[in-house]
Formats: sequence, structure tokens, C-alpha cells
Amino acid sequence: MSKKSKKKLKKKERLSLLKVTTKKRKPAKKASVKVVAVRNGHTPAKAKKGRLVYFFGDGRSDGDGKMKALLGGKGANLAEMTRIGLPVPPGFTITTEVCTWFNQHGKTLPKEIDAQIEDAITRIEKNLGKGFGSITNPLLFAVRSGSRDSMPGMMDTILNLGLNDETVQGLIAVSGNERFAYDCYRRFIQMYGDVVMGVQKRPGEEHEPFEVVIEDIKNKIFPGRKNVSDTELDASSMRELVKQFKNLVHERTGRSFPSDPKEQLRGAIGAVFGSWNNDRAIVYRQKYNIPNEWGTAVNVQAMVFGNTGNESCSGVAFTRDPATGERVFYGEYLINAQGEDVVAGVRTPDAVATLQEKMPKAYRELEDVRAALEKHFHEMQDFEFTVENGKLFMLQTRNGKRTGVAAVRIAVEMVKEKLIDWKQAVARVPADQLSQLLTPIFDRKAIKHAQKIASGLPAGPGAASGRIYFNANEAEAEALKGKVLLVREETSPEDIRGMLAAEGILTARGGVSSHAALVARQMGKVCVCGASDLHIDYSASTLTVGEHVFKRGDFLSIDGTSGEVFAGEVKTAPSEIVQVLIEKTLDPKESATYGNFAQLMAWADKLRRLQIRTNADQPDQVANAVAFGAQGVGLCRTEHMFFEGDRIDVVREMILAETQEAREAAVAKLLPYQRDDFAGIFRALNGLPATIRFLDPPLHEFLPQTHDQQAELATKLGVSQDKVARRVASLHEFNPMLGHRGCRLGIVYPEISAMQARAIFEAAILVQKEGIKVKPEIMIPLVGFQKELELQVQLVRKVAAEVCKQHNTRLSYLVGTMIEIPRACIVADEIAKEAEFFSFGTNDLTQTTLGMSRDDSGSFLPSYQNLEIIKQNPFATVDIAGVGGLMKLAIERGRKTRPDIKLGICGEHGGDPASVKFCHNAGLTYVSCSPYRVPIARLAAAQAALGNPA
Amino acid sequence: MSKKSKKKLKKKERLSLLKVTTKKRKPAKKASVKVVAVRNGHTPAKAKKGRLVYFFGDGRSDGDGKMKALLGGKGANLAEMTRIGLPVPPGFTITTEVCTWFNQHGKTLPKEIDAQIEDAITRIEKNLGKGFGSITNPLLFAVRSGSRDSMPGMMDTILNLGLNDETVQGLIAVSGNERFAYDCYRRFIQMYGDVVMGVQKRPGEEHEPFEVVIEDIKNKIFPGRKNVSDTELDASSMRELVKQFKNLVHERTGRSFPSDPKEQLRGAIGAVFGSWNNDRAIVYRQKYNIPNEWGTAVNVQAMVFGNTGNESCSGVAFTRDPATGERVFYGEYLINAQGEDVVAGVRTPDAVATLQEKMPKAYRELEDVRAALEKHFHEMQDFEFTVENGKLFMLQTRNGKRTGVAAVRIAVEMVKEKLIDWKQAVARVPADQLSQLLTPIFDRKAIKHAQKIASGLPAGPGAASGRIYFNANEAEAEALKGKVLLVREETSPEDIRGMLAAEGILTARGGVSSHAALVARQMGKVCVCGASDLHIDYSASTLTVGEHVFKRGDFLSIDGTSGEVFAGEVKTAPSEIVQVLIEKTLDPKESATYGNFAQLMAWADKLRRLQIRTNADQPDQVANAVAFGAQGVGLCRTEHMFFEGDRIDVVREMILAETQEAREAAVAKLLPYQRDDFAGIFRALNGLPATIRFLDPPLHEFLPQTHDQQAELATKLGVSQDKVARRVASLHEFNPMLGHRGCRLGIVYPEISAMQARAIFEAAILVQKEGIKVKPEIMIPLVGFQKELELQVQLVRKVAAEVCKQHNTRLSYLVGTMIEIPRACIVADEIAKEAEFFSFGTNDLTQTTLGMSRDDSGSFLPSYQNLEIIKQNPFATVDIAGVGGLMKLAIERGRKTRPDIKLGICGEHGGDPASVKFCHNAGLTYVSCSPYRVPIARLAAAQAALGNPA
Repeated sequence: MSKKSKKKLKKKERLSLLKVTTKKRKPAKKASVKVVAVRNGHTPAKAKKGRLVYFFGDGRSDGDGKMKALLGGKGANLAEMTRIGLPVPPGFTITTEVCTWFNQHGKTLPKEIDAQIEDAITRIEKNLGKGFGSITNPLLFAVRSGSRDSMPGMMDTILNLGLNDETVQGLIAVSGNERFAYDCYRRFIQMYGDVVMGVQKRPGEEHEPFEVVIEDIKNKIFPGRKNVSDTELDASSMRELVKQFKNLVHERTGRSFPSDPKEQLRGAIGAVFGSWNNDRAIVYRQKYNIPNEWGTAVNVQAMVFGNTGNESCSGVAFTRDPATGERVFYGEYLINAQGEDVVAGVRTPDAVATLQEKMPKAYRELEDVRAALEKHFHEMQDFEFTVENGKLFMLQTRNGKRTGVAAVRIAVEMVKEKLIDWKQAVARVPADQLSQLLTPIFDRKAIKHAQKIASGLPAGPGAASGRIYFNANEAEAEALKGKVLLVREETSPEDIRGMLAAEGILTARGGVSSHAALVARQMGKVCVCGASDLHIDYSASTLTVGEHVFKRGDFLSIDGTSGEVFAGEVKTAPSEIVQVLIEKTLDPKESATYGNFAQLMAWADKLRRLQIRTNADQPDQVANAVAFGAQGVGLCRTEHMFFEGDRIDVVREMILAETQEAREAAVAKLLPYQRDDFAGIFRALNGLPATIRFLDPPLHEFLPQTHDQQAELATKLGVSQDKVARRVASLHEFNPMLGHRGCRLGIVYPEISAMQARAIFEAAILVQKEGIKVKPEIMIPLVGFQKELELQVQLVRKVAAEVCKQHNTRLSYLVGTMIEIPRACIVADEIAKEAEFFSFGTNDLTQTTLGMSRDDSGSFLPSYQNLEIIKQNPFATVDIAGVGGLMKLAIERGRKTRPDIKLGICGEHGGDPASVKFCHNAGLTYVSCSPYRVPIARLAAAQAALGNPA
Repeated sequence: MSKKSKKKLKKKERLSLLKVTTKKRKPAKKASVKVVAVRNGHTPAKAKKGRLVYFFGDGRSDGDGKMKALLGGKGANLAEMTRIGLPVPPGFTITTEVCTWFNQHGKTLPKEIDAQIEDAITRIEKNLGKGFGSITNPLLFAVRSGSRDSMPGMMDTILNLGLNDETVQGLIAVSGNERFAYDCYRRFIQMYGDVVMGVQKRPGEEHEPFEVVIEDIKNKIFPGRKNVSDTELDASSMRELVKQFKNLVHERTGRSFPSDPKEQLRGAIGAVFGSWNNDRAIVYRQKYNIPNEWGTAVNVQAMVFGNTGNESCSGVAFTRDPATGERVFYGEYLINAQGEDVVAGVRTPDAVATLQEKMPKAYRELEDVRAALEKHFHEMQDFEFTVENGKLFMLQTRNGKRTGVAAVRIAVEMVKEKLIDWKQAVARVPADQLSQLLTPIFDRKAIKHAQKIASGLPAGPGAASGRIYFNANEAEAEALKGKVLLVREETSPEDIRGMLAAEGILTARGGVSSHAALVARQMGKVCVCGASDLHIDYSASTLTVGEHVFKRGDFLSIDGTSGEVFAGEVKTAPSEIVQVLIEKTLDPKESATYGNFAQLMAWADKLRRLQIRTNADQPDQVANAVAFGAQGVGLCRTEHMFFEGDRIDVVREMILAETQEAREAAVAKLLPYQRDDFAGIFRALNGLPATIRFLDPPLHEFLPQTHDQQAELATKLGVSQDKVARRVASLHEFNPMLGHRGCRLGIVYPEISAMQARAIFEAAILVQKEGIKVKPEIMIPLVGFQKELELQVQLVRKVAAEVCKQHNTRLSYLVGTMIEIPRACIVADEIAKEAEFFSFGTNDLTQTTLGMSRDDSGSFLPSYQNLEIIKQNPFATVDIAGVGGLMKLAIERGRKTRPDIKLGICGEHGGDPASVKFCHNAGLTYVSCSPYRVPIARLAAAQAALGNPA
């Protein structure tokens, strides 16, 4: 801001202050909860060019709930709630576009924003009859971030803004509560000092500097006593804190704490915008694929106080249980507290039901709000409220995060309740969350003998066992070695990496809406929180529960569905879905979870066009996948069978063979093994098709690499160790990924392909004779040239004819290829002359298209994600522009030659919802994924058919 | 062929035989050499549907010289020579299409061919008044292969076909020469027995079985004598040979030697078609990129005999000297011999000039033919002739193979002689052959002291030193270890792999048109042939020349320009062109070779649109390339400078740095080195542009790999050896080709890119201040994502601005990228937003597009070439369908964003003529290649502009 404009502003500010202070206080207009969606709820708001600030309050808003991109989720829903007549304290939202501008212009704000903010403040002042900077009836603001998607706790918040040594007197006068007023003031300095002015722990310091000041005062007032609560400090202590906090700020920053409310506001807005790029927020965005360019909005809202006394409270609530999906009013509150206290989990709050007794009027209003929200949003809502001296205020609502189990249940039940239709139900469950329904629970027998040591709130369902660590960094490091539980008093956004790495999270404090619970639910982590019997000594690295003492590295087990905590390691058992479908140990009628799951899957199957197959190499895997709904095998890696039992020795004999004859002899020994394998798979498929890939990996992968192993092999095969070592050396490759593998093996050693073809056809005929249909599809890997495929296809057809003739029978089968190198995409028209199907091997296609080895990319991929060169890990989600571009080319060209060519994908991407969506749009016939991802792919395929953003 | 049609045919055959034998002999019409291009020479022939057999003779032909694809080179030119009135014995050509049919239909001939052959034979019989199968005046045939491109000696030939125990009597009667007739007969059995019936050396046998029979007879007749010549055997010995040869055939094959001439003919035709797929022919086609599907034609031509006595001879001649290009009549002949004797080099023939004295009339006719051929074909011709009893017959003509020196001289001189225009001259010199003009000659001083031990015929120019080996296989194996000369009595098509591997070829027998000479010229190998003082003892592996004895592995040196052979290793010196342009030790006016070269280059430069740049990393290399005509540097690999002198230690210090500060310190030490390097390059370029690539290879390439080297480095840098070893281990990659390299280094370690940018800009400003123009073009390698390039471009521009500000000057430069991974091609439109130029790095682009590591492909590429999956080594010639397809996509998309984007290629392919042609057609701005390939690229670019097939 130029000096000139600063000067101008100051003049305006003074005027505004003058104006405000002369105003009389009017009571805020009472919002009628019953009159929902009346006034402007049906006229959608429009974004106005040049408008940077969107006002809301008194039943009117410049924005509405659809404007999440511009106003962020919180801002849009504050506007929407205001429109439908819910009691929202007035305020305004500064758009996400300003955030982008701010971060692109050296952290400055556009000039034209000042007047718009001024206007909005004036409207709030009028609405509330308070004055911003007024020394008689001061208007205070909460300044909060709010991005398009919720990023709980990731960015900064400042409360009670507008207080200074003069306005605090007004707050005392209005509230009649000096302690309250100074408590607000000191909290404001503490938050503002930290967030805006950067007064934070320095390297080597053990505690936050503001906390040190508080401890000093407590020691002075209550010498010798430990664990003095903040509530025990009186008004004068609070006043003293304000003084010392200001000194601390000056000492640490060389600057005075700003007393001008407008200056405070400008600083807070800048800090919130700046917090979009703090480390925590960046990590979070990476995990959830939130683009950097979205930015955050800033919400400036009149303060209401849940901490004015025992007629006040702050709370958070869900319209249904976010852990189980049950239709109950679910939530918690703290009497005489600000909202941040509830979320931070510093004190363990009470269940919302208890409010009925303590504040019956407020509770009735809350129940009405709960019904109104679901009726209006047709979604389970997660909302924040404050009761100030008996009066209810809504501070936020948003679609509630929930576990996978809850998501399925809510979706299915909302259809029954006619809140949504069945297609909406399918659209609504994040496909990835289904994996939570398949995660293990504790083994029933094992848990009977387990020693329960404590219980807390069930905050993230599932069962987890692991070694306990008390520090997020340590948990992250130890998780590389084995399963880990992160155990904390409470978690904070700084712990996010450790939470990501842990199997489960256990906290001693905080409720089901605490940071730990919220984040765990979203991540699908097992979580038990608020287990208040736990005593954690960070410095000694011990956890004490009654007489039990556990050290870092000891085992604990937690049940995130029941909230129980057990000593030691407890065996886990499959989920209910798995018990019904796979183990068949549970009657489907006994499991509501299974019922909801099956209903959702049935709806999904009605919608999807993509077929779902599975990547599986063994009969039992195939059977599981079929139980999960797989419509065939999309990738059977024949070489996986090579490692079983003794046959690896035969494989090695084959590789060490020096003549074609010797190789053929070894290959012949493999034939019966492979035939049995394939017969098993055909039986498990019971008529569904099986795509079987010929030998793919380079041969050296089958040979022992160490001296001792080589010696052992030499003895077994009766050859010299030198010979083994020489062959290993001769097979060494500089870039095995680009080496002698795939169909290149079958070309140079056709006898291997011939044996595999024979094994497949003999197995097929065998099983066919048992009365089971077989549909073998032979897949030639790593093809880049038409002629490569032609030669292998000729060989396969020759073997097929021989085998059929020998058995005097017929057999229908397909031969196709894996498309996994860029050249194959470019010449797909030629390759399609030979191929009856294409299956995209997107793992290798990604490696070659990006010139990036999956095994080696660890050295630069983190930098690439930080710098946003790559937004999503290309080995998890198809790189749509690059790899996807080549796939589209291949599809177009392949269809030119063979319009009805069957198209599939068998890379790891087949089970990734975003990639499934791409495959749907690209017109593939099927996707193939690992057995446990099959339900996810089914749902994702249905959502893709609906046009869902994945 | 069905039994029925066989029966039909037999009947026809009998009829035909009857018809023929009743005919009287008429003298063949005398061809007038003077009446050239008269009768149907100007009416082009047309291929007729269903015509499988093309007749020629008596001045008329069904085909003509343009029909090489259908009739093969030999067949087309026999037709053409007949048309222009040259004395060609009549015959017919079976088309190449029949060859393809034959090899696709289980080695059978199409049914309808029989009647056409019958017709053609009848026309020949009429023309010559002889009868095929006649026992009074038998018509004999030569059956020869003839593919589109000449493949000398690669396929089979059968002479004197039609002889049996009865017709031989007719030949005796007509020729009045029993010995001659039986010699023909036994040669026929020998050739037919070998080629058609497969009587060949078995494993373990030392000599050809027919040769064993001959030796036995010689021993019987001349007991105790060695080296008895065939000519010493009389008529009865020859008759005896015929008998024994027939027995041998029966004994070896179980079948009688066929006496029916038609059966003989069918067998011979099949054998020639079959020989298209013999091993030698396949190897040859691979080397010269001749497609398998071309096939060979079969030429069946009435025999004429150069071996009827001393008034007969066979010879081969060139219209100019194929080694030097001088316009002299050049060739050789053997009195009383068949043509194959000359080519096989069994006896050393006489120079064609000596024929003037021995057969003045035939010589005059030959001189007329020589002039007529050049006038008609406008090209230097290589032709075969036979004089039968004083009468000249032409058996073949074709464009003569020649050395690079000769090609340039002939092209330039033919323009002066107005035989061709200057554009034709440019089109005519195979660009690759220019490398022969740049190959070394012996150092003048060294050669003065060299001990000359023998001399032979100069058959392939240039100088070569190497260890001698007497066996092609051994030469091939030893060539992997060092320079090798292949020394043979004479070479044969079986030696082709050894010849390919050797630096030079030395033979004791054979003339300048022997197999050795012909093949060497084509391959650009140094060759001395017919050095008759050489005595080679294959069994003792020694070469004796007078008193000198050389063992296998000893050094010899040969001068293929003078024909001299020297003992030991002789230092070589640069070619004349290099002496003029690079060393500047030779006055251009003194070198005719340089004059012709310079003229050709000047013409080429007038034609070409492509610019030619060079891949060079050092000032002297750059200067050389500029002397060869390079218009700038297309690829300067900065890391090559890292290995020089002490700086590798600094590089290693940089890599071992554990903090950014330490790395920056090491990087700073590298700056002055790099600045000096770049300044030198800018000076050498003197205003031409320089594309400089940032650091590309993975860092581990700079670190020592062995324990001892690591210990040494640790001592030098004062760190623990363990640390060095750990860093080496941490940098290990599974697939370094796809690992942490290219711009991925500059992204993770921006300080390295910043240093390199600074070095370039500081050097540029330094040299600019010296009054020399500089045009730096900074190239970011391995880019796959727009953002990668964006970040590096930002960094480069920032450094440029800083450096310019420091020096208070301006500098113009470009920043662009190497396109070397498939993704970059696909998203070229995005990348072009950041890139001012694209340079295709086709080495890596080939590896990633084909999923094929250059270093590892040796294990399957030979099989791939044998099986014709890959026709040309994709690392030598751009894979046009695959890699080229991606390049075209990139060009199209890049231009969409930036229509004037500069496009180049800097892979090894930039110096390969076929690839240069592709680059021209794809619309690139320039190609870049190694300095010594620059003239080749200039010529290839001109030819591409002319639309030449590369």
C-alpha cells in the first residue's frame, strides 16, 4: 500500500470510528429457525465483477451456498445459512481470488478492497448496533480461513479482533465481566502475536513463549502448585497477562502490538491468506490433491461468545453419527468456552444430548436447525454453534466427513428417507472409502483374551495393532519398519505426517470432533480419542494406565469401532463384508453393514458401463475377486507361479540351459505345473474370461544374486558355481526395465511361449471337459512392433491347433497384447491387425512415457510434488495429459483397424477412482484391479457413468 | 503342383522337345553396337498383368531398364541393353513377384508359369536356331539370380544347364571340342549338385566333396604332384569326373542326377528363388537395409562360352576407375575362362588394356560399348562380357560400385562432360560414402620408414593397420579387442561378417573386381587384393612373404590407395580433405580430391534447406566442425567438461556435499572452469549459435565405483571412505536411464543450473566484449512437464538479468528444451509455451519410445533383425513409424502454440542420411551431428531437398 493511500485510509478510519461510537446499541434481530428458506433462499446469488467482499447478515447475503470456489466452503455456507434464515452472526467473506492476487503480488492486497471492507463493516455495525473500534460497545471480529474444500485446522484463525486498551473497557461495560473481557484480550494478543507477528517457539526452546508467560504468572500466584487451570486466573491476572504479552511481542519482534483495530484487521487478513502456503497446509493439499491455485477465502465475522458464563457454550454437531452413519443427533459442547476449545480437544466435552437438560431452549432450537439443515442440504451436516447467554448462533455448516461405513449407510438410508434418489446415493460415497469396509476388525477369539486397559471415544472404525510412539516424527520414521500407533495427549495439525504414517491414532483428550478424530476419519485411520485414563509422560516416553506402564515401542491395540484399548498385540480378523463374501462365516442377514454395501453395489452395477476385472494369479485370489464382483481376470501374471515350491529350481534350470535342447527339456518340466495353475484359475472363474500374460520379467529376476545362494543352486543343478555366476553376470542389465523382457523373451526363446500356450490350452480343454466354460485370452506383453506380435500369435495359434487336434476338440480363445510402451500406442493401427484386444499396462507405460523409473523416482518425486510439477503421483493416478494422451491415440488408431477391439487396463491404476473415470471416458471395455479394489472400481465406474468428478 | 498338371506338363515338354530337335541351326543375328537406342529403346516397356516371364533377345524385350523392382537389376538391364542394340544372348527373366509367391507357397511355383516359360524358350530356340534338349545343337542356359539392388555373390548361379549324356554329344559336335564339352558338363553337375541338390561339405569334412573327387583324379593321373591345374586334365579325365560326380550325387542324396533339361531348369529356378533366404543373403540384406519382400528375379539366358579356347575370354570392366574415379577404361579378363572365374578371383586376370593387342576387334567393340553405355545410362557402368570365338557378348551391366573418392570425382567430372547436371551430381553420391574422403591415410613421415613387403591391387582406398587373422570368424571375434586385418587367399561370401568387422582386407589372389574388392569398396573398407607374393598357410596360421613370416596376431599395414603392404604398425595421418581444412598443412589447389569435394559441397549447400550443426563440447572440436561446414553447435554436453583435469574432484565434492551451502561452495569452484570452456566455444564459433545443454547424466556417473578409487577420493576430500561409499550406494539406481538425471537434477539442485547459466552468460559477455558475436541457446534436458521447464527458464532468466546488470550490458539468448521423452511430445503444445526451441534428443527418445535400452538390447536385437521385426537398427536410423511418429506429433503441437519455434535434432541420428531425410521432410530447422559427419549431413540434406531416396 502506498503512503498516500495509507493516509487516506486513516482519515476514513477515524471518520468511521467516530460514526460508530456515537451509535446506540440495538439488540440483534432474533433469527427465526422455523422460517426456513424464505426470503432470498430461492434466488441464487451471482458473482459480481470487481466484488472482492461478500456481505452476509440479517437474512441477506451477497453470496450463496453454490459459490464455494469463490467464497470457500465456510463463506458460501454462512451466506446460505443466512439466506435460509438460520441465526448467523453477520460478517463478510473476502474471496479466494484475492488470496491468489495476494500471493502473486508480494503479499499485498488490491487497492480497491479497502472501500468494500469499509462498506461491509458499516453494514455489520448497523445490523448489530456495535462499532468496530467503539470504546463503548465494541464490535469484535473472528477472522477465519475457508477454502473450497475443508482443510480442518490447517490454516490460521484469529478471534476477538478489535480489542485494545480502550475497546476492552467497552467490552467490560457491555458484558459486565472484566475477567471475560481481559481473557478475550489476552487470547487475541496470543493468537495475533503467534499468527500475524510470528512470536513462536525458537529452536531450542521447549515451550511456546506465551505459555511460558502464563506458567510464570501461575507460579507467582500459586507458588509450588502444579497444573493450575487457566480458569483459576482472575481478572487482574488476565490484565497482567495482557501487559506481559504485549511486552513479549515487542521484545521478540521489535514492534509494538498494534492497537488500531483496522490495522489489526489488515494484518489478520494477510496472515490468513499467507497461511495458505504454510507447511502443514501444503502437506495436506498434497495428500488430498487440492490444487494450490484454489486459494483460501477469509471470513470476517462478528464475534459471539460461548465463554461469557454458564449460560453460554460452544459446540460442534453432526446431523448423523459420522462414525457409524446412524441417524442420531451426534455432537458435543463445552460450557463457557470458545469454539476453538472444543475442536482443539483441550477439555473433553459433553455429548450434545446432555444440553437438553442444561439449556432446553437452545437444545430445541438446535434440533430444529439439525432438521432444517438436512432438509435444505440433503446431506449429513457437520456444524458449529455457539450459545451466548442462552441465544443460539450458527458459525458454520458443511457436509460432514464420515467413515466409509457411515458414508454407505447414510447414502442408503437417505434414499429410504426420500431425501435423495438412488443415483445420488451412488454419487455420494467416495469410492476410495469403500476400502474401510474391507479393513480388518479384531479376531473374535483373540479379543476375548485380550486385556482391555482403557476406553475412549470410537473415532475411526477398524482394528489396529502396533508399537506405540509419542512423537509424530518418530512414528513416521518407525512406520518404515513396522506397524505403529501414534499416541498423543491430543493431536494438532503439526502431527499430520505422523498420523499419515501410523496404523492408528490414540489420544487421551479431545472428543469425536477433535482434530485427531476428524483427520483420522478422513484418512480412514483407526482412531480412539479422549481415552482420559491415559497418562502420557512425553519426557519419559511412557504411557501409564492405572498400574500399567508402556514404554515407547511397546505394543498396544485399539478398536476404533468400540473405542476400546488393549494391551499388547491382538490378532485382527476380516471385516464383516469379508466374513460374508469371502470367509462365508457370517450370515449376510446378520450384517447391516453388508446389507447397505450390497444395496449400494447393486445400484452401482445398474449404472456402470465399464466391466471390472481383477489382477490375480492364483485360484483363491480369483475366487475372492469374483466374490467381490469381478467379471473376469484382467491380468494373470504367469511368472508369479514360477516362484512356488520347487518349481523355481526348474525355472533356473531353464535359464541356465546352454542349448535349445536343454532349455526345451527344462521347459517341458514346467508344463504340468503351469497347466495345474491355469486349470485352477479356470475353475475359479466358472465361465468368466481370463486374460493370461506370457512370461514378462527379465530372467535375472529368477536367479540368486548372492554368492552363497549361487553355490547352493550350483550344487542342486550339478553345475559349477562359476557357470551360475557367469550366467547371472551375463544377464545383468543396465536398465532392466528397458531390457530383455516381455515378448522379447518369447521371441528369442519361442519354446517358453510354446510351453505357456500349451499349458493354457491343455488346462482349458481339461476344465471344459468338466463341463465348465472357459474363455482364455492370451496376452503378449511389451509389444512395440506389429511383427513381434505376429510371430507370437502365429506360435500360439499353431500350439492351439496342435492341442485341439490331440484332444479332438474345439476351443475358442483370444490373443491380444499389452500396450505398455509408447511405440505401441503410436503404431496401434498396425498392432491391431494382430491383436484381438489391447490391455493398457499403465505401470510400464507410465515409466516409459514419463522416462521415470518407479523404483528410482523417490529421489526427485517429493520435490516434484512440492513444486507442483506433478500434482498427483503418476504411479497411483493415470497421468491424463501424458500417458492418457498416448492411450487415447492408441484407442483411436486401434479402432481404425479393428472397430470392435476389446480394450482394458491392467496397471495398478485400474483400482484408482480418478483413473477409472478416465478409462470410462476414454471408452475402455473394462478395468482390472487387485481383488480388494474391485468394489471400489465398481462404484467408481458407476460414478464415472454419472459424470461424477472423481 | 497337382499330379494332373504334372502329367499335362510332361506331355507338353515332350512335344516341345520333339519340335526343337527337328529344327536346323541358324546363326544368331549379329548385333550392331553402333546402332544404339534405335528400335524400341524409346518406347518404355509396360508390366503386363499375369506376365511372370519377360523375354529379351534379338533387339526386342518385354521389359526395360526401369523395371528393376519387377525384373531385378540384372534382368532389367539385360532387357535395356537388348533394346539399345547391344549384343546380348537371348533369354528371359522370371519376376521377383514369383520369388515372393514361391517363398510363401511352400517353395512351389505358380501353375500358369509353365506355359510362359515354354513360350520364352521357343522364342530363344527360334532366335538361336538351337534346341533346348537337342542332341545335335543343344541350347544351354545360365540361370542367375538378380535382385533389385546388386547383391554380388550372395545368391546362387548355375551354368551350362541343359547338358546330359545325350546333349553333351551335340555340344561336342557343335564345338568340335570334347574336353570343353565335358568340362562344361562336369561344372554343371558340380554347381547343380551343390546348389540344387545340396551336396555340400558336411560337419567335420575339410574340403568340398566335389573338390575331393577332383583331387583324387589328379592324384591318380599325376601321382606325387601337387598343385595340378584343372586345365591339365584332358577330355577323358573330364568324362571320368562327370561319371564320378554323378555317383557322388547319388551317394549323398539317394537321388539320380536329373537328365531331363526341363527338370534341371525347374530345379535351378527353385534353387535360385530359395537362395534369397540363405544365411549370407540375409546378413547382406541386413547390412544394406534391403527389405526381404523385394525378392530376387531369376534370369535364364542362353549360354555363351568364354572357355572355348584362346579366341575366347570372359571379363568384367568399368567405364571409369571405380577406386579413383579417373576416366579410364578399367577392367580385367581371363582368356579361355567362364565369367565366374574372373569374379571368384581364382586366377589373377589381365588388365583390360592388354586385350587391345590380343583381340583387337573385340577390344574395339568393347570400347564402343563402353561409350554407348555411359551415353545411354549417364552413369559409370560395371559390365560383364564374354568373347566366344572372337565374338563379343554382353552378359550384364549395372551402375558401378565405387569408392567415395571415385563417386565424388565421377559426379563432378560428369557435370563438366555435360553427361549430367549439377543437381544430378549431388543426388548421385551416397552421402555416407563421404566418410571415406575423411578416413586416414598413412602418416607421410612414418610411411617413409615403413618396411614395404609386398604390393597388390589398390581395391579400397585408405590406410589401415591391424593384427592379422586368416579366418573370418576369428577376425570377427578379435575385432572386439582391437584393430584387425582379415588376410585371405581370396574372400568368398562366407567371409562377409569377418570383412565387416575388420579394418582392412588383404588377399593374395583376385583382381579389382574380385569379391574382396567389390565388397570392400561398398563397405568403405581399406582393401588390397591380389598381392601374389603372399603365401598363406591356413593350417599353420602363418603368412610368408619372401623371408618374412608373420603369425596370426602380428601387425601389418595396408594402403588401399597405392596397393602397398607394410610390416608392422604404421602411423596413419589425416586424409587430404582433413589436411586442407583442419590441419591446414596442404594447399587446397594441390589436392584434386579436395577440389571435387569442395565443388560438390558448394552445390549441396545451394540445394539444402536444413541447417547443419554439430555436437561438440570443446573449442577444437567446434573449430573442426566449422571447417567442415557446421553452422553452429547443436549440442554442447556441459558434463563432458566435468571430467577434465582436476575439476572432477570439484564435481565430486559437489556431489558429496550434504547441505545446500556446501554444495553451493563446490558449485562456485566449478564456475570459472565452465566459464572458460564456454568462452572458448564462443570464440571458435565466431558468431554462430551454440546450443548448450545443462548437466544431464545421473550424478553417480561422476563418482568412483571401486573400493580403492573411493578410498583415494575420501583421502583427497578429507572425508571418511564410508561416507563416499554410502553416497555412491545412495545414488545407485535400478534404471539410471529413467532416474534422477536431466532437468530433474536442476530442479532438485537449482544451484547447479544457476552456476551453469552464470558461466554461460559471463562467458558470453566476455567474448562479446572482445568484439565477437555470441548466440547462446540454453537447452534444458529431459523435460516432460511444462512446469519443469518453466522453473528452469525462470531461473535462467533471473541469472541472465543479474549478470547483465553486473556487467551493465545486454545479451540476447534463447532458452529451449530437449525433447527426449514421449510425454514431452504429447504435451509439446504446453511445453512450447516455455520453450523457444525444441531439439529432439533421439537417442533417449528412441530408448523410451521403444522401451529399449541401448546398452542392453544386444541380447535380443540380433534376433530382432534376423526375424525382420526391426529392419534398421533404431539407434542408427530414426525409427520413423514410432519415434518419428511422436516427433511429428511434437512438431505439430509445438507449432500450434509457437508457430515459429526453432526445431532441431541432436541425437546420433543427425549424421545418418536416412534420418536427415526424415528431418527434412518433418520440417526441422537443423540437424546436429559429430564434426566428421557434418559433410555427410550437408550432402544428405541437399539430397533430401531433391527428394532423393536416402
